Amino acid sequence: MSSAHQHLTHIDEAGAARMVDVSAKDVTTRTARATGRVLVAPRVVELLRGEGVPKGDALGVARVAGIMGAKRTPDLVPLCHPLSISGVTVDLEVADDAVEITATVRTNDRTGVEMEALTAVAVAALTVVDMVKAVDKGAVVTDVRVEEKTGGKSGDWHRP
Amino acid sequence: MSSAHQHLTHIDEAGAARMVDVSAKDVTTRTARATGRVLVAPRVVELLRGEGVPKGDALGVARVAGIMGAKRTPDLVPLCHPLSISGVTVDLEVADDAVEITATVRTNDRTGVEMEALTAVAVAALTVVDMVKAVDKGAVVTDVRVEEKTGGKSGDWHRP
Amino acid sequence: MSSAHQHLTHIDEAGAARMVDVSAKDVTTRTARATGRVLVAPRVVELLRGEGVPKGDALGVARVAGIMGAKRTPDLVPLCHPLSISGVTVDLEVADDAVEITATVRTNDRTGVEMEALTAVAVAALTVVDMVKAVDKGAVVTDVRVEEKTGGKSGDWHRP
Amino acid sequence: MSSAHQHLTHIDEAGAARMVDVSAKDVTTRTARATGRVLVAPRVVELLRGEGVPKGDALGVARVAGIMGAKRTPDLVPLCHPLSISGVTVDLEVADDAVEITATVRTNDRTGVEMEALTAVAVAALTVVDMVKAVDKGAVVTDVRVEEKTGGKSGDWHRP
Amino acid sequence: MSSAHQHLTHIDEAGAARMVDVSAKDVTTRTARATGRVLVAPRVVELLRGEGVPKGDALGVARVAGIMGAKRTPDLVPLCHPLSISGVTVDLEVADDAVEITATVRTNDRTGVEMEALTAVAVAALTVVDMVKAVDKGAVVTDVRVEEKTGGKSGDWHRP
Amino acid sequence: MSSAHQHLTHIDEAGAARMVDVSAKDVTTRTARATGRVLVAPRVVELLRGEGVPKGDALGVARVAGIMGAKRTPDLVPLCHPLSISGVTVDLEVADDAVEITATVRTNDRTGVEMEALTAVAVAALTVVDMVKAVDKGAVVTDVRVEEKTGGKSGDWHRP
Repeated sequence: MSSAHQHLTHIDEAGAARMVDVSAKDVTTRTARATGRVLVAPRVVELLRGEGVPKGDALGVARVAGIMGAKRTPDLVPLCHPLSISGVTVDLEVADDAVEITATVRTNDRTGVEMEALTAVAVAALTVVDMVKAVDKGAVVTDVRVEEKTGGKSGDWHRP
Repeated sequence: MSSAHQHLTHIDEAGAARMVDVSAKDVTTRTARATGRVLVAPRVVELLRGEGVPKGDALGVARVAGIMGAKRTPDLVPLCHPLSISGVTVDLEVADDAVEITATVRTNDRTGVEMEALTAVAVAALTVVDMVKAVDKGAVVTDVRVEEKTGGKSGDWHRP
Repeated sequence: MSSAHQHLTHIDEAGAARMVDVSAKDVTTRTARATGRVLVAPRVVELLRGEGVPKGDALGVARVAGIMGAKRTPDLVPLCHPLSISGVTVDLEVADDAVEITATVRTNDRTGVEMEALTAVAVAALTVVDMVKAVDKGAVVTDVRVEEKTGGKSGDWHRP
Repeated sequence: MSSAHQHLTHIDEAGAARMVDVSAKDVTTRTARATGRVLVAPRVVELLRGEGVPKGDALGVARVAGIMGAKRTPDLVPLCHPLSISGVTVDLEVADDAVEITATVRTNDRTGVEMEALTAVAVAALTVVDMVKAVDKGAVVTDVRVEEKTGGKSGDWHRP
Repeated sequence: MSSAHQHLTHIDEAGAARMVDVSAKDVTTRTARATGRVLVAPRVVELLRGEGVPKGDALGVARVAGIMGAKRTPDLVPLCHPLSISGVTVDLEVADDAVEITATVRTNDRTGVEMEALTAVAVAALTVVDMVKAVDKGAVVTDVRVEEKTGGKSGDWHRP
Repeated sequence: MSSAHQHLTHIDEAGAARMVDVSAKDVTTRTARATGRVLVAPRVVELLRGEGVPKGDALGVARVAGIMGAKRTPDLVPLCHPLSISGVTVDLEVADDAVEITATVRTNDRTGVEMEALTAVAVAALTVVDMVKAVDKGAVVTDVRVEEKTGGKSGDWHRP
């Protein structure tokens, strides 16, 4: 990365926050995929797998929350641009000690959707915590991160 | 914890999601404190500490985003009750390899504010990621969790 | 009903809209139940019942949308008071020619939750239409109405 | 309609909800017109027609609510795309036993505005119910449906 | 005013913004009245008075926008508490060179509604500007200020 | 200005409000700059300048509020189109008797961003009032107005 990028672009030379002007950037198809995990107690894993009780809507609610969360990104993250999101998927899987979450977001717009994918994961994760908290007060949201992005001038990026 | 609590309260016996009725619970003062971290590259730590450049608004923007995020919790987490939040603080500190975030939320209402505190941390963390992403695409939000809660019928709780 | 009630309370004597002052009303437990239906084609009924394909999240998505919709009522209906909703359930059943929706909302507040229950039904119904529209462009939302309310000075009411 | 369309597009093959990817669709001018009715008591019809009292803002409030409701569609209907709405009209007429509502929405975007038109009608209708409920608790929202759409790959459609 | 009040309460001793804790304050009836003006060209005054054309919804739209704006205050002003608003009126009058706006807001809550009244005036004023801007690009929003407040520990206040 | 423009475009010939159809307008780069002032007491000026106390986040909070406010414009101003905002800056300066606010908004879209720039100024101004109100109940928001706009069919405009 060139030294020209070695500063916080959202902060101007005087230290003031701004929404960076992207009007000169091209409208292209861009995608981002982010992941995260909610660490939960063994009893929660059993309940989410439906052992002994109806599995029910729990993961479905978190999936919807994540999709809707992606759309709320510019309301939540102050310097994010409002974006024309063209597709979102959120996948939740119950592992042995955690719920694993993956979100993929697509756009045709002037800036990337990494923040939208991360927000989808974060909101889905918070929703999982909300639903399990009567059984497990200690659930932890962890490892929320971008895995890859495609499109845009800076090109594709994959987590090393 | 009694076995009576060993199910997902937000899901009824048929598996359907619901917003649990709290109308019979008492209005009491309740608090929750949550923490989390954003793992960042060394160059980001330097920039956030203002080494060689104006430190600027960056942490202040994340703090405001976290406070506003706490207020948006019922819009984001589907089964959360709208709550009368009576106070929010969000603290951000730059450690050697991370930004450490702590949020404390207070209410006088019928249900706890753990989700509001977690949402404040998560939104502040997402905002940090957004502001550093031009320098560090690999930032990771991690260890977002409730540390303690007070008030309400279930009483105080501290992470063991 | 006394003649004192025979005017539009949300419109003052000069014809101007206002949010009626409820500060002198008592905080009591109030409930409202509303119902509605989405008329759909036979093929949609089969799909929602899971005949030949995974039934999937469809009704669960509409249920979550209805619960969240109840919370958005004061954002949507201009003269509605923001309310402390204490519980929401939304039930969807697939009948032979329709999806039947019932929403029940509870509060401890100074005004009733009829509008919140109706909004929950309407948003759940719109969500059903959205999900079936690739198969059935002609779906119709119909019979959205309050069935009963309890609590408050005007007392209980049941649809005759 | 080809069999390829005979499934719920918003639900994937495993039954999970998703926001369908529309990034490959063309940006074209699209319109949708939806209608609906609020059945009201005779006394309400008189009041809305201004017989003996100022007619006032009542229908105007519902019209504004409908226009604003169209803009909130992606916040309410979980799997709807955020859209660049380019025009909205909402018309309300007082018939002998009902308020008749028509909404027309236009866009230049990658997907249709049927849901925006339906949401405009539904929110306007809920607002009418809210304004008349002190006089008529039994008002019913009914026959909310798309009448026609134009534009897009699937072409024009008129209710048969 | 005592020196104890001579600091910015929303900023702590280290300079960080916070939502001040009001949980120890009493729930009382509080009101606030704010006013403001939109300076407009003579042609706009004629149009708003309906000279030669239908006066139409213009002031009604601004009134609704102001009422809804009051409810959005905690979404807009970062350190404002979410409040249980119990009543809002917004009045607009066409003077010879301006539209005069007055908003009155009531609550039963732990903190005052001055910001809600100001936000109602500001949003109504912005809406007036939006509606007249095709005729008068130079409209100015001015003199937006609290006129009086009642209730709460600090008691009543009237602009000197 | 031609007589064709001498009416309120947001109101149709029958007096009904509408969101004007802009689908035939070109997507071009458009900007708007608006300004405003918050008149404050001398003690507030000292506090905002950090005389004797930490200056802290106060202006930074107002700046963030203004940027986020620009994005909320179509939620607040009923007949505004949702817009693809491509950049926002908000500048606050402490003068001898006021806080001076300037907002600049850019878009690539079919309609101008004057309302977005005005909303950014208004929300930043309301936030300043909120932060100083414990010290100065009498703060006044004034002179909120468009200074210039560029782009679009009607071309550039500068306040005379």
